[in-house]
Amino acid sequence: MPSSALTIPFAKHLGIEILPAGVGTAHLRATVLDVHTNSFGTAHGGYLNALADTALEIASNSYDVPAVALTTSMQYHKATSIGEALEITARETHRGRSTATYHIEIVSGSNLIATFTGTVFRKQPRAQKA
Amino acid sequence: MPSSALTIPFAKHLGIEILPAGVGTAHLRATVLDVHTNSFGTAHGGYLNALADTALEIASNSYDVPAVALTTSMQYHKATSIGEALEITARETHRGRSTATYHIEIVSGSNLIATFTGTVFRKQPRAQKA
Amino acid sequence: MPSSALTIPFAKHLGIEILPAGVGTAHLRATVLDVHTNSFGTAHGGYLNALADTALEIASNSYDVPAVALTTSMQYHKATSIGEALEITARETHRGRSTATYHIEIVSGSNLIATFTGTVFRKQPRAQKA
Amino acid sequence: MPSSALTIPFAKHLGIEILPAGVGTAHLRATVLDVHTNSFGTAHGGYLNALADTALEIASNSYDVPAVALTTSMQYHKATSIGEALEITARETHRGRSTATYHIEIVSGSNLIATFTGTVFRKQPRAQKA
Repeated sequence: MPSSALTIPFAKHLGIEILPAGVGTAHLRATVLDVHTNSFGTAHGGYLNALADTALEIASNSYDVPAVALTTSMQYHKATSIGEALEITARETHRGRSTATYHIEIVSGSNLIATFTGTVFRKQPRAQKA
Repeated sequence: MPSSALTIPFAKHLGIEILPAGVGTAHLRATVLDVHTNSFGTAHGGYLNALADTALEIASNSYDVPAVALTTSMQYHKATSIGEALEITARETHRGRSTATYHIEIVSGSNLIATFTGTVFRKQPRAQKA
Repeated sequence: MPSSALTIPFAKHLGIEILPAGVGTAHLRATVLDVHTNSFGTAHGGYLNALADTALEIASNSYDVPAVALTTSMQYHKATSIGEALEITARETHRGRSTATYHIEIVSGSNLIATFTGTVFRKQPRAQKA
Repeated sequence: MPSSALTIPFAKHLGIEILPAGVGTAHLRATVLDVHTNSFGTAHGGYLNALADTALEIASNSYDVPAVALTTSMQYHKATSIGEALEITARETHRGRSTATYHIEIVSGSNLIATFTGTVFRKQPRAQKA
């Protein structure tokens, strides 16, 4: 399914802009607002994860097979302030019949904010009885 | 700092209810709304991560030392529908001088929805020059 | 398959003792030898991971369905010295048709050395054509 | 410290060959032997993790600051057979004062076998009293 055809209410709620991207990839943009912050006034870890997880959702669902996240891991490198414009990109590391893995980066200008790896389950139709 | 004293704008934005909990722990409640869903109409992975990450933030900041997430990992076990009431609990697995680790569970009734592990950096004041 | 019936060459190579354990669980013992150490003279992270991964292999293969690791995450809490006797236990966090998750702990006496979470793919036989 | 100067008994025990590599990186080679296998006769997950963790140890200790693993995560993409020659490379994703993150790949020819992310704690000397 082309990335532009996916409707993701949570992504819309967070103001995430979904850009055109090739099959198996994703490209997003988002701006940190005050409602996205933690108790230190910087972007909340869960907000940054939601950006990465949305990229995972789009990249892994760009084929004809529905895909859902099994496991994700995230590394936080640098705090992000209100007003910063973030760019999120996903690349496919591996894709098999039943599972696939994607690596995602969140950058703010030339700063690497966070890295994320997600593995999805691909819901292949079960072979039908004759 | 007592959990009730933390102001977390993103947690408020997501409607997370922060319950009283002991030092080194956290106890939250949240209800899945339509704005929290993914393209399949169930709770978005990033929303569930934000619940867990908020529990991490509260549990790890319940001492006198500011703590920020370094790495997190999450396992998704069961999809969650709009209207479901989720309960999130954090326990401290290990706490050292400079880092600490917390394990978090998200349940819906008797169903385990997701598990999460987070490791934080504890910003100890540097020894001052005499 | 009962845990005692599994032959795991790498576990034998590392001197891991596999104790009887219930379905969906595992219980191992191992002693840190000098060949198991890193450049600091303490147990190598890869050695500790091999202990946990062996527990994952045994617990997840205790049913009639072959299971292979998809993703694992590990948290290191405390260094371990040569001669220390380690105990490793696995519990099943979730088991579905195609995937399952296990949480594993490595302890040395009353010290928690490391925690580990592993998610496996369960190779169900594909439905056969009539 | 140059990678060639590190003595890692567990790496030697597993037959890992440490090649010259730049600061912040690592480059290893290893061949899967029968003692490195799991119950399916392919390379054990813990063995593959030990290869990646050794690359993490070398890359993160290539500066003047001792570094120890805090958390690691690993994704398994393809099974590996006895006799296969594996190549392991590490790159530095981020390095701060107290922590750093490395991404590691294990390949066999043109096949991506596994990916690994490790975050280390850098043991900076504490400021001394005057």
